[in-house]
Amino acid sequence: MNDQFLRVIEKMKEEKINQFIICDPGSIFYLTGQMFHTGHRMLALVVSVDKEPILFIHEMFPAKEEGIKVVVFKDADDYLTDLYNVLDTSKQIGVDKYFEARYVIGLSEKGLTYPFKVTSYIVDDIRAVKTDEEIQLMKEASLINDKVMLAIQDYIHNFEGELSENHLESVLRSEYAKYTDEGYSFDPIFGFGVNATDPHHGVDDSILKANDCIVIDIGCMKNHYAADMTRTVFYKGVSDFDREIYEIVKEAHLRAFNFVKPGVKCSEVDAMARDYITEKGYGDYFYHRLGHFIGTETHEAGDISATNDNVLVEGNIFSIEPGIYIKDKAIGVRIENLVVVTKDGAESLNHVPLDLKVL
Amino acid sequence: MNDQFLRVIEKMKEEKINQFIICDPGSIFYLTGQMFHTGHRMLALVVSVDKEPILFIHEMFPAKEEGIKVVVFKDADDYLTDLYNVLDTSKQIGVDKYFEARYVIGLSEKGLTYPFKVTSYIVDDIRAVKTDEEIQLMKEASLINDKVMLAIQDYIHNFEGELSENHLESVLRSEYAKYTDEGYSFDPIFGFGVNATDPHHGVDDSILKANDCIVIDIGCMKNHYAADMTRTVFYKGVSDFDREIYEIVKEAHLRAFNFVKPGVKCSEVDAMARDYITEKGYGDYFYHRLGHFIGTETHEAGDISATNDNVLVEGNIFSIEPGIYIKDKAIGVRIENLVVVTKDGAESLNHVPLDLKVL
Repeated sequence: MNDQFLRVIEKMKEEKINQFIICDPGSIFYLTGQMFHTGHRMLALVVSVDKEPILFIHEMFPAKEEGIKVVVFKDADDYLTDLYNVLDTSKQIGVDKYFEARYVIGLSEKGLTYPFKVTSYIVDDIRAVKTDEEIQLMKEASLINDKVMLAIQDYIHNFEGELSENHLESVLRSEYAKYTDEGYSFDPIFGFGVNATDPHHGVDDSILKANDCIVIDIGCMKNHYAADMTRTVFYKGVSDFDREIYEIVKEAHLRAFNFVKPGVKCSEVDAMARDYITEKGYGDYFYHRLGHFIGTETHEAGDISATNDNVLVEGNIFSIEPGIYIKDKAIGVRIENLVVVTKDGAESLNHVPLDLKVL
Repeated sequence: MNDQFLRVIEKMKEEKINQFIICDPGSIFYLTGQMFHTGHRMLALVVSVDKEPILFIHEMFPAKEEGIKVVVFKDADDYLTDLYNVLDTSKQIGVDKYFEARYVIGLSEKGLTYPFKVTSYIVDDIRAVKTDEEIQLMKEASLINDKVMLAIQDYIHNFEGELSENHLESVLRSEYAKYTDEGYSFDPIFGFGVNATDPHHGVDDSILKANDCIVIDIGCMKNHYAADMTRTVFYKGVSDFDREIYEIVKEAHLRAFNFVKPGVKCSEVDAMARDYITEKGYGDYFYHRLGHFIGTETHEAGDISATNDNVLVEGNIFSIEPGIYIKDKAIGVRIENLVVVTKDGAESLNHVPLDLKVL
């Protein structure tokens, strides 16, 4: 049994959780080294304080019996009863926050002494502190992201003719393919002009125009670890107003980054960026949290927000991504790096300069 | 209140469900005409037999108050308590099968007279019978898929040099962009040779070789309805063995298709294809169900499998996709069309010929 399992089991004992049903693919990868995306088919790793871990998985997804027992089921099997039968229902059982109602309620209806508790925090808290090896892997993924970000910017600069967001997306895919065959860590965003003011825009067939801002929010997977970075650039020119907004976001980013070190609260990091943007008069236009934790998944448990008073520790990795989005002025700016908390400060995993760039 | 809501409420009354918490984006779209993908943020539509429907949604996803009340929350809000407060906890409440443990258990811990029941079938059964308007939209999406499938095959035929699966994927994206800005209905599969033997392959940097089979499993979204089609073609040549496998899968597909009409069981349709493949000696190499229902989502509730004895009715739309996958021989064949159950038979939504094709 590896270190990760041992730490989870130790914590389960402290919390008096006898068994823990985990379904989060990122957590299962963290514990087993095997990544499964089974769509709407049940995936459940049962970790017990006193028994070997058991993975329930559909036969279409081959799993190795390395440190775990594997129970393979077919669509036609009564796999929920099989899962129920490995549970010690006389004791407290914890479940993953993402476990679906059909399983939670289906198992409950079969009979439990104690109602399920959500105990994802047990594995999430452990995952949030990256090991040295994990930090290296995260750096490797972000290094690719740096290269591809610059390649995309060069591509925009050199392009002649009508350039659409959709086209850039296909270029992005080809660029990542040079370095990784694991694809995107999330659906990329290329937001031209007013599209940049929607933080969840995606891509469409909008055509780039002179003086547009361009939000480029991209990430790839490498060795099952995620990259995630945003730059906002301008095409052929930038107005004084847009420049002002850019510089505010950049300064907010730097203030938050420079504040990061072990012992500070997540909410305090958020405030460093948010208070500055508010002071400059744009607080209402920065309406999302400052950042999110990241690792084997792009969004892991934990965020950098006004309501998270958890304290940072060495090895935490998260995004810093302040933004200002003003729809009426067709200007959206977001600047995002991933950062790792070091012994006495923070280090950025991204190295593309933050300075304003006109392509 | 529209027809869809009225049908759901009528069924809720029959089933003695006073309130129903729906989180499935496809069901919410079906009822409200608004599609939301909120990632890991809570999305919940509370349908009551005696009150206006209420949608709980994060502020980052703008929702219109058309036939529903909208409750917008921020990350920092106690939205689970707000949700609890609109529930009549003295009566039976149903929840979506996909509602996550953190919400199911979080609400339960606040106190309920009756434990939650999973009642997704109420809306799923209604969604499974498409209206004439929905059938037209499904046909439109599949018409695009037909065109793009042929364009991709032409592209492969005319390509010179080393062709990778990843490259085809970028071509696919550009082709779809000509007809829709809603993107894929699922991650596409381009499986060359042995890759074709993994039904969930995806794409990688494998290079196409002469005599390879190529599984092309693709689909787009259009007007929020999904397309999904698979063809298997061969590159520059085809072996006698591969041809034999192809013809078996094709015949299995046709047998299943020709059997479809109102009143037959889903399991009987599955058997038409499966029994033929088994009779030919390849039953073990066809290890997934024959098909799945589809509509506003690529995989909707309901499947064409050995264990589903539900009876087909006019307006059902599903895939027929038999396959044979023999890893040792590097041959995988799957042939998939979407079909709609008509008054006295079935109609295919796809029109790309099923005949074996060497590019």
